[in-house]
Amino acid sequence: MATLPLRLDRSDPAPLPAQLAAQVRALVVAGTLTRGDRLPSSRALAADLGVSRAVTEQGYEQLLAEGWLETRRGDGTYVASGGLATGPAPAAVRPAARRPLVSLDTGTPWIDPRQTAGWRRAWREVSAATPPRGYDDPRGLRELREALADRLGRTRGVTVDPEEIVVTAGTGDALRQLLRVVPPGPIGIEDPGYRSAVMTAHDAGREVVDLPAARPITSLAGLAAAYVTPAHQHPLGRVMPAAERLELLAAARAADAVVIEDDYDSEFRYDVAPVPALASLDRERVAYVGTAAKTVAPALRLGWMVVPPALLGPLTERRTVTHDGASWPAQRALLTLLRDGWVDKVVRAARRTYAERAPRVAAALSPYAELAGPLAGMYSTWLMPQERAVAARDAALAAGFRLNLLSTYSRSSGLTGLVVGFGGVTDEELDRALTAVTRALAGDAPAPRDPARPAPRA
Amino acid sequence: MATLPLRLDRSDPAPLPAQLAAQVRALVVAGTLTRGDRLPSSRALAADLGVSRAVTEQGYEQLLAEGWLETRRGDGTYVASGGLATGPAPAAVRPAARRPLVSLDTGTPWIDPRQTAGWRRAWREVSAATPPRGYDDPRGLRELREALADRLGRTRGVTVDPEEIVVTAGTGDALRQLLRVVPPGPIGIEDPGYRSAVMTAHDAGREVVDLPAARPITSLAGLAAAYVTPAHQHPLGRVMPAAERLELLAAARAADAVVIEDDYDSEFRYDVAPVPALASLDRERVAYVGTAAKTVAPALRLGWMVVPPALLGPLTERRTVTHDGASWPAQRALLTLLRDGWVDKVVRAARRTYAERAPRVAAALSPYAELAGPLAGMYSTWLMPQERAVAARDAALAAGFRLNLLSTYSRSSGLTGLVVGFGGVTDEELDRALTAVTRALAGDAPAPRDPARPAPRA
Repeated sequence: MATLPLRLDRSDPAPLPAQLAAQVRALVVAGTLTRGDRLPSSRALAADLGVSRAVTEQGYEQLLAEGWLETRRGDGTYVASGGLATGPAPAAVRPAARRPLVSLDTGTPWIDPRQTAGWRRAWREVSAATPPRGYDDPRGLRELREALADRLGRTRGVTVDPEEIVVTAGTGDALRQLLRVVPPGPIGIEDPGYRSAVMTAHDAGREVVDLPAARPITSLAGLAAAYVTPAHQHPLGRVMPAAERLELLAAARAADAVVIEDDYDSEFRYDVAPVPALASLDRERVAYVGTAAKTVAPALRLGWMVVPPALLGPLTERRTVTHDGASWPAQRALLTLLRDGWVDKVVRAARRTYAERAPRVAAALSPYAELAGPLAGMYSTWLMPQERAVAARDAALAAGFRLNLLSTYSRSSGLTGLVVGFGGVTDEELDRALTAVTRALAGDAPAPRDPARPAPRA
Repeated sequence: MATLPLRLDRSDPAPLPAQLAAQVRALVVAGTLTRGDRLPSSRALAADLGVSRAVTEQGYEQLLAEGWLETRRGDGTYVASGGLATGPAPAAVRPAARRPLVSLDTGTPWIDPRQTAGWRRAWREVSAATPPRGYDDPRGLRELREALADRLGRTRGVTVDPEEIVVTAGTGDALRQLLRVVPPGPIGIEDPGYRSAVMTAHDAGREVVDLPAARPITSLAGLAAAYVTPAHQHPLGRVMPAAERLELLAAARAADAVVIEDDYDSEFRYDVAPVPALASLDRERVAYVGTAAKTVAPALRLGWMVVPPALLGPLTERRTVTHDGASWPAQRALLTLLRDGWVDKVVRAARRTYAERAPRVAAALSPYAELAGPLAGMYSTWLMPQERAVAARDAALAAGFRLNLLSTYSRSSGLTGLVVGFGGVTDEELDRALTAVTRALAGDAPAPRDPARPAPRA
């Protein structure tokens, strides 16, 4: 395995992974690399090129998806043997190669396509409304906070005055603003856990301490705050039992730590009613964070938080200076969507869809892996050795689907497996992805193929 | 002057300044405080109550505006003598008391009211468009970046590929994202300067070093980046001369520092054409930051940045994880507003309005204070001793207008004066505010009056 003659250029407007993919493609077309040649590992190549491993992984993923490369189980990445025999002209391959991957991520929800009329009505109302002259109330649109207070009481058991709600530009924004006013000190984050939360804590100059995601959290000693997902642990899917909730709150009181409860997809339980939020047990200690990304649209960039009384004043004062409000038109539209009952309708329809899809995923994967939590939400997580998870992920990529490895969410836990989102796909796409994954796990995965040609073998 | 029997309660949903104001009002109504009683300074009261000075200042400002308190030049704050003789019933005063202050800030633009139809059309287009299924391109809507690239070339002399533009949720968001990928080290910020930038740098765990705002910046030694406003220094209004721009870029190259150019209101020159952006001179070294807050609406929460090639990859990779995109509907609407020529029309109309108002402000204030920069943009800054600036600010408050002291933007510079915004007001409001300010500066300010009653003296 020779060093590849690649050169990535940060002044080139093309993203680095795309540059990498283009150069490897060119080497194959030129015959410098031929079928069966082994490529360096993504880690070795990243070190060689002086880029992050994400760059080489993304570049390889693209090439795997396009059929230029293939993986052999436990044995690295090779130039694909199928379909490249005659050295296809780049022009013939590229159009198909640009077909975007379908993402089976944890964050893309299923939105009922029959509800388009209500969505349009909300934006027509925005078009007729008068925007505020300057910056709005730093907490967000008053009428929206009233509608959110009503809904939080009704669906999450959190009794809250609209004055205590702050509208955000999403969960990351909420966490960032809370960390501004949480006293100094390290932040505990579940491991495995939400990568964006870890990055946001680091951006705020905070040390991150790993909290167990699969076991009770019994101490927060020395921590300023703990970020947790009790309704549906991200990404293991575990629901925190009542006794553990009380134990966590006791630990928070003992350490004088703030608990930041990210309640991102709690409404999508289909076995039982959603467990009331942690914030319903202790409003002094718990900062509650919710999002419209799972119920309305990720691209709206809108969420809300219920801020503990001691933090509300300082947080609002800072927002007044930094203008960290959420976009006013998005707030105004969400107000209509809540008032019209659109959100309730969409949540009910999505819950039915997830309740139908989750068992299909389980039926496909349970022969090969262990489910990490109850079936809930819009994804499920399957524990298996890393080697098998990588093989399954690669087989899905070759079929045009992007799946996340559990290892990308793990820090010290060492847990490995596959995270399977089923919100952002059609039924047919889900079936094709599951077929690719289960074939790989069953040991009869087809070789990745050149997407511009018929598959070399069925 | 006795200690006031006040108790602010952070668990009360009312903001602390509102609690303070309500309790002082109650003390006056109860007769515990009577006219002519002197109140503790806002600083002493803040220390006494264990709250930030902003809380006591805002509480006092509200009471000054309502006529419950008055200031005597250089001599502190007193219970007002006018109008309180018979102890007005709170019920009678409160409706008038809640009249919000009109803000003469630097950030609220004048938007041509005749352009409402185009605004509405943009949101109707949003209502008919299909939002992305998951999160959008982490750099923002492609068509919007193309329209912005076109406009930046046309109006700011910055030749840029749409791939190098990143859409943001405003200037604070841009600065925050840039600081994630700027190498470690202190950040230089102009002094006096934009308070939000200072806070954002602190939130990112960065040390802030004061750069001179009124003199050439000749060295950036030891700094990782410098945040500057060369088109219209915020808040002094100075335009950085060409020779200083070259000197700044040379200093940045010598220190290997990034220059972050905040180009917030450059389009509002009415004396000469806008000076091309610093980024037009050095795209490798300068991160350009623009905002829709001044040309479309602050509440849209939308801006853009042109990222130096070396930072673009890492910045985009982080955005992919943290989902720090701007709200998609706002992006889609801005695309229409740019394509329809709405933004160009609104900028031209606002420029005409500012060109008419700025000389009126200058005519009123120039007998009493020194103008800090050329007349440009939607505010002007007037240098004067702090005592006189405070008296003018208080007189404006008493008349129902909120003005910023230059001292709130100063760190080590020691510059004092008054910052007069004239975008977010009507002509009539501007005239009334200027009358209040100039009377105070001329030494014949009327005493603050109870807004529910006729003025005790003209």
